[in-house]
Amino acid sequence: MTRPLLSLITALTALAISVPVDAQDEPPAAPSPGEIVAAAPGSEWVTIPVSDLLVMALAPDAAGKERKVIIQLMPAPFSQGWIDNIRTFARAHWYDDITVNRVQDNYVVQWGDVNYDNPEATGKAKPLPEGLKVVDESNYASQFWCGHHICLPPPPVGNLRRYLSSDYGWNSFLNGWPIGHYDRRQEVWPVHCYGMVGVGRNFSPDTGSGAELYTVIGTPPRHLDRNIALVGRVIEGMEYLSSLPRGHGDLGFYAADEANKRTPILTVRVASDLPAAEQPHFQYLNTDGESFAKYAEARANRRDPFFIVPAGGADICNIPVPVRRVP
Amino acid sequence: MTRPLLSLITALTALAISVPVDAQDEPPAAPSPGEIVAAAPGSEWVTIPVSDLLVMALAPDAAGKERKVIIQLMPAPFSQGWIDNIRTFARAHWYDDITVNRVQDNYVVQWGDVNYDNPEATGKAKPLPEGLKVVDESNYASQFWCGHHICLPPPPVGNLRRYLSSDYGWNSFLNGWPIGHYDRRQEVWPVHCYGMVGVGRNFSPDTGSGAELYTVIGTPPRHLDRNIALVGRVIEGMEYLSSLPRGHGDLGFYAADEANKRTPILTVRVASDLPAAEQPHFQYLNTDGESFAKYAEARANRRDPFFIVPAGGADICNIPVPVRRVP
Repeated sequence: MTRPLLSLITALTALAISVPVDAQDEPPAAPSPGEIVAAAPGSEWVTIPVSDLLVMALAPDAAGKERKVIIQLMPAPFSQGWIDNIRTFARAHWYDDITVNRVQDNYVVQWGDVNYDNPEATGKAKPLPEGLKVVDESNYASQFWCGHHICLPPPPVGNLRRYLSSDYGWNSFLNGWPIGHYDRRQEVWPVHCYGMVGVGRNFSPDTGSGAELYTVIGTPPRHLDRNIALVGRVIEGMEYLSSLPRGHGDLGFYAADEANKRTPILTVRVASDLPAAEQPHFQYLNTDGESFAKYAEARANRRDPFFIVPAGGADICNIPVPVRRVP
Repeated sequence: MTRPLLSLITALTALAISVPVDAQDEPPAAPSPGEIVAAAPGSEWVTIPVSDLLVMALAPDAAGKERKVIIQLMPAPFSQGWIDNIRTFARAHWYDDITVNRVQDNYVVQWGDVNYDNPEATGKAKPLPEGLKVVDESNYASQFWCGHHICLPPPPVGNLRRYLSSDYGWNSFLNGWPIGHYDRRQEVWPVHCYGMVGVGRNFSPDTGSGAELYTVIGTPPRHLDRNIALVGRVIEGMEYLSSLPRGHGDLGFYAADEANKRTPILTVRVASDLPAAEQPHFQYLNTDGESFAKYAEARANRRDPFFIVPAGGADICNIPVPVRRVP
């Protein structure tokens, strides 16, 4: 053996410590959920109607930085009574100059009129706009698709168990939304995952008008499913709500000596009412598509290099539906 | 009928509008989970050893307010190799002057040496203290109680399904901690709920030394169970971590232009090393006790006045173990 060859062998042996000598002996690293989503073809992305987007501008932060939150409203058949009211509130500019009044750690951020549904209210509540629909308790049924009658079962989710079974019954995805449903009866309803937006209310039979909204900032409070109307989800700017200072009054409302912590909401607009150049455009990954099935399976069984033991399943709220700006 | 009696009847009729005429006709309102916990006798509260508490002082906030975070370390048999290291780091004052380097929305807050395990590292990592234990990959087994041999099954949880079944297998509570376990094999392990604290690591077989710690600030990332060592939970001051500004570098680390967002950690002390007058004292509600069983059942089936439809179950992470300062 000549010296150069020996050197080559020594070099290869040294390399073998950090990489396999023959890369074909090892299966390629499994893609992460993020890599699967990034590789999804454009045909699997569904554009969200601009009229289903709300643009909520919070007052700039302490450093003067703009804070915009984009909320996607649910499509029919869910919760349309409340959603019609939300568009009415936005178009009447009723939400302008309301504030974030409640930030309860590991629970919700809630915004609305500081003098309504707030234990710290000191003034007169703002009059409601005209044209609101009366959404009474029977309207919770509109959270249940198909009522007590036949309807299509939720779609399969690839190799993942066809319906996710959890402590909250059965779960799946429908038209880009996480849903719960009964095993035999076919009602389905939207569920409380991180970032979902719902309608604040007082004790039943009050169902809330849409004047008070909240979003989830912690453990999914699934005990609220079917008890409060869900109307949408935050799809951009969630951090501007989730990182707000916590309140120390009852239920996480800002207490009397914390009035200065209330973040003003400058404007809330239905995106389709904005000038065309200012309209945001978003799309979600088709939850009936092949890429979503692979993504959900990978969320349930992480095999990318960091992981040792795949979980073997995933909570519906730990499979967030990918949403992005239209590229 | 004399006038006074009529007045009395009128008064009673008026009252009837807001309260039932005969209170016995209506069952009393079901207690809320919080009311059940508040009524638990002192004998059901278990004192946490002071040596299992860490006191972490963050730099004061912008308004000069003190921010102390209290972490409860897990008792044996879980994760004691890492926990011994954490006490070694604290006693060497190694954690003093480290920073919060990562805040990823709906995931984790992570703190440690800014020049270690940080894509934005620019300087030399801090030398580790002497006396650390080597915790290698086989030590993940210490997250599994009883290994592959017999052990006691987790305790029943009152009227709630004996074991909570979820997308992540079976779950229960053991000595005040939420745990996962297999159906037939008896290994049990701690699980990633909101506020749980774990040990940052790089790719396997690295298991982390305890120099980098994180806590969960969103949807329970249960896919991390058995993949990263859990060592404790935040029991006070969680909001000082969960409300920190989010990072915009890879994985939510603060990017190069966000260095000023890193929150300094002034000191971390094992509470039993503090002067007696400064030692905090906490207790948790016995998870084998009658009150906890009622509490868990009420979390799964809310019947207090706000609720219309009880969920019929609860995720293990949506039954947070009550912890309080010793009254």
